[in-house]
Amino acid sequence: MALVVQKFGGTSVGSIEKIKKVASRVAREADKGNSVVVVVSAMAGETDKLITLAQAITHTPDNREADVLVATGEQVTSSLLAMALIDMGYKAKSYMGHQFRIITNQAFTSARILDIDTERVRQDIKAGNIIVVAGFQGVDEYGNITTLGRGGSDLSAVAVAAAIDADVCEIFTDVEGVYTTDPNICSDARKLKRISYEEMLEMASMGAKVLQTRSVEFAKKYDVTLHVRSTFSDNEGTIVTMEDDDMEKVVVSGVTYNKNEAKITVWGIPDNPGIAASIFKPITDADIVVDMIIQNTSEAGFTDLTFTVPKNELAKAVDIVNSLKESLNAKGVTFDDKIVKVTIVGVGMRTHAGVASKMFTALSNDGINIMMISTSEIKISCVVDAKYTELAVRVLHDAFGLSELNTKEESI
Amino acid sequence: MALVVQKFGGTSVGSIEKIKKVASRVAREADKGNSVVVVVSAMAGETDKLITLAQAITHTPDNREADVLVATGEQVTSSLLAMALIDMGYKAKSYMGHQFRIITNQAFTSARILDIDTERVRQDIKAGNIIVVAGFQGVDEYGNITTLGRGGSDLSAVAVAAAIDADVCEIFTDVEGVYTTDPNICSDARKLKRISYEEMLEMASMGAKVLQTRSVEFAKKYDVTLHVRSTFSDNEGTIVTMEDDDMEKVVVSGVTYNKNEAKITVWGIPDNPGIAASIFKPITDADIVVDMIIQNTSEAGFTDLTFTVPKNELAKAVDIVNSLKESLNAKGVTFDDKIVKVTIVGVGMRTHAGVASKMFTALSNDGINIMMISTSEIKISCVVDAKYTELAVRVLHDAFGLSELNTKEESI
Repeated sequence: MALVVQKFGGTSVGSIEKIKKVASRVAREADKGNSVVVVVSAMAGETDKLITLAQAITHTPDNREADVLVATGEQVTSSLLAMALIDMGYKAKSYMGHQFRIITNQAFTSARILDIDTERVRQDIKAGNIIVVAGFQGVDEYGNITTLGRGGSDLSAVAVAAAIDADVCEIFTDVEGVYTTDPNICSDARKLKRISYEEMLEMASMGAKVLQTRSVEFAKKYDVTLHVRSTFSDNEGTIVTMEDDDMEKVVVSGVTYNKNEAKITVWGIPDNPGIAASIFKPITDADIVVDMIIQNTSEAGFTDLTFTVPKNELAKAVDIVNSLKESLNAKGVTFDDKIVKVTIVGVGMRTHAGVASKMFTALSNDGINIMMISTSEIKISCVVDAKYTELAVRVLHDAFGLSELNTKEESI
Repeated sequence: MALVVQKFGGTSVGSIEKIKKVASRVAREADKGNSVVVVVSAMAGETDKLITLAQAITHTPDNREADVLVATGEQVTSSLLAMALIDMGYKAKSYMGHQFRIITNQAFTSARILDIDTERVRQDIKAGNIIVVAGFQGVDEYGNITTLGRGGSDLSAVAVAAAIDADVCEIFTDVEGVYTTDPNICSDARKLKRISYEEMLEMASMGAKVLQTRSVEFAKKYDVTLHVRSTFSDNEGTIVTMEDDDMEKVVVSGVTYNKNEAKITVWGIPDNPGIAASIFKPITDADIVVDMIIQNTSEAGFTDLTFTVPKNELAKAVDIVNSLKESLNAKGVTFDDKIVKVTIVGVGMRTHAGVASKMFTALSNDGINIMMISTSEIKISCVVDAKYTELAVRVLHDAFGLSELNTKEESI
């Protein structure tokens, strides 16, 4: 008998009909003789509806009260799902954050989980109950309601799975699993059977649709095996787990891309120490997250500095840089928001040489010019012109034999 | 500095605009230097909407889960009102049942309050916070969410007022207070300045629009002074409090009526011991509440028995009685749903003689035939033909000088 955590997101529980379907899915798991703990999000659209109510009161709602308000979304779903299960003849109980008790710090609207009390829930599981947990919510040590930030239900599921020592944490979603790349761009993209936490984190830009980065980090920390799978079928999805020897044999696991960044270049800066600091300090102070940074010398005594920021922060960042131009003595500032970052990810890179040059060759063979490069232990990213997005993804998917590889993997 | 509990019902907080108005009303009280604890219902219509959701899952929703579901209604209102107050520059905090802690028994959907923990709330009041309590809800000793049954927010307000030793519990509603009778029927109905708990209880059929019977009983038990007043004006409403000498000088305080009952007569029953029991046992077993009962002997050896039941239970009750007809050897069963119960209420009846005969005379002078009579220490009820409802109310209002009396009272 296994202990299984199943997490269903907002679209999976977006209507009464869908909640009934989820109840059937949960019941099938219970029928196997497994103990099931379900974690649910608010019905799709409900959280936004509640936020609209708050905004009608004030544009700057108090954070403590905002959490009290939005926490009702998951409360509604969990009670409805428990009702549906009880109606089908199962023993079921909804659990709010204050009942489970999922203890967080006091950072309302983006609280961090500190501790989870499992005594009561273990008793209820033992008594044969299906537990339906309201995701996204917790309580601080004084019993104030807190929420974990957007997508927090994934985190609730992983944290609950870790706390009760579940055998697996199944994340139900509207896709079949994690793919080698975006199937909308590359028709021979293949579903991965297994992927490491590290790779999943690097693939976040693609995986964001599937899994929150914070929940993957949490799963990695507490060694919770995740199973990303479809709400609409019983097919096996993708297992996200610890890196193992088999994974290392695969050089590249996936190709991802991110079109949400823009790049800014400050050129012709007299090359003195402290340039980077004087640019990035004010940008960071303005809460703008910088991703890639490249600095190189252009001509004697002058340097160029290029970096990327989220597209929606571009205007703000350009304003800041322009205000610094004079003090930096820079010759100019240019920016470009028609770029894409293409990334290959794979734990096998650690032990395989020549991955980078293979990537650069593949792109250049198809006439794709590389503007920026950044690497980490298990990924290589290239910024190229946005018009090449689909071509670059397909070229790399092909160059690293990802469709082929997975066909083989699927047949194991 | 006074400690004031203010309760606002569903229509008073039925929209964002109305919640903002309630915030202003609460703020005015705080501006006087008073400490304010607010108790709110769900926004009008919200509870019904939630029940409709549950009904879409199953027609027999689990009671524990139903409470988890409907409790979100008050959670939403209390957080929105707290937000509005904070936005206006006040310190405010919402309190759910599990935070206050309002401890109830485990009778989900109709729980009884057992205890209220006021330590934390007293600290927050001391620190200058306006407390906004989600009405209608509590928790059992295990932290399960419970609700107090329809209209439970009144009860929450009275219980909270008792627990924190408030100076007054103001019940805001859409009328100006408690009237000598229904102003829609009797244009010279007057607002009462003061009324005793006992009278308020007897006037429930009229007062039901204003105050739940349970909350008046609770207020009486714990000696909580109620102030029934209008959400839409700053006029003084009606104080509901302990009986005092002044009240006793007034013979009749009000005239009420109830059109929601129907009467059933079983006639020509051979007069043996145990007839009443054999009729009312099966009726009570079917959860039908019997109000008035009259038994009298018609001819030698035979008796007639007449009783009233809620109109919506009439068919069920008649079925039961018909099934008993044979075993009772009764000659017949008749019923009538075109009746009204007209009641005069007043603590002064205890010390004044001749009230009943004055009532009967007044009715008969206008040709109104009395079908049934029932009396208690402080009220007399007569059942008459429903077509006389308005006439009977006006006749009695006049006979006991209620408009005149109140004009005098108002001028004190």
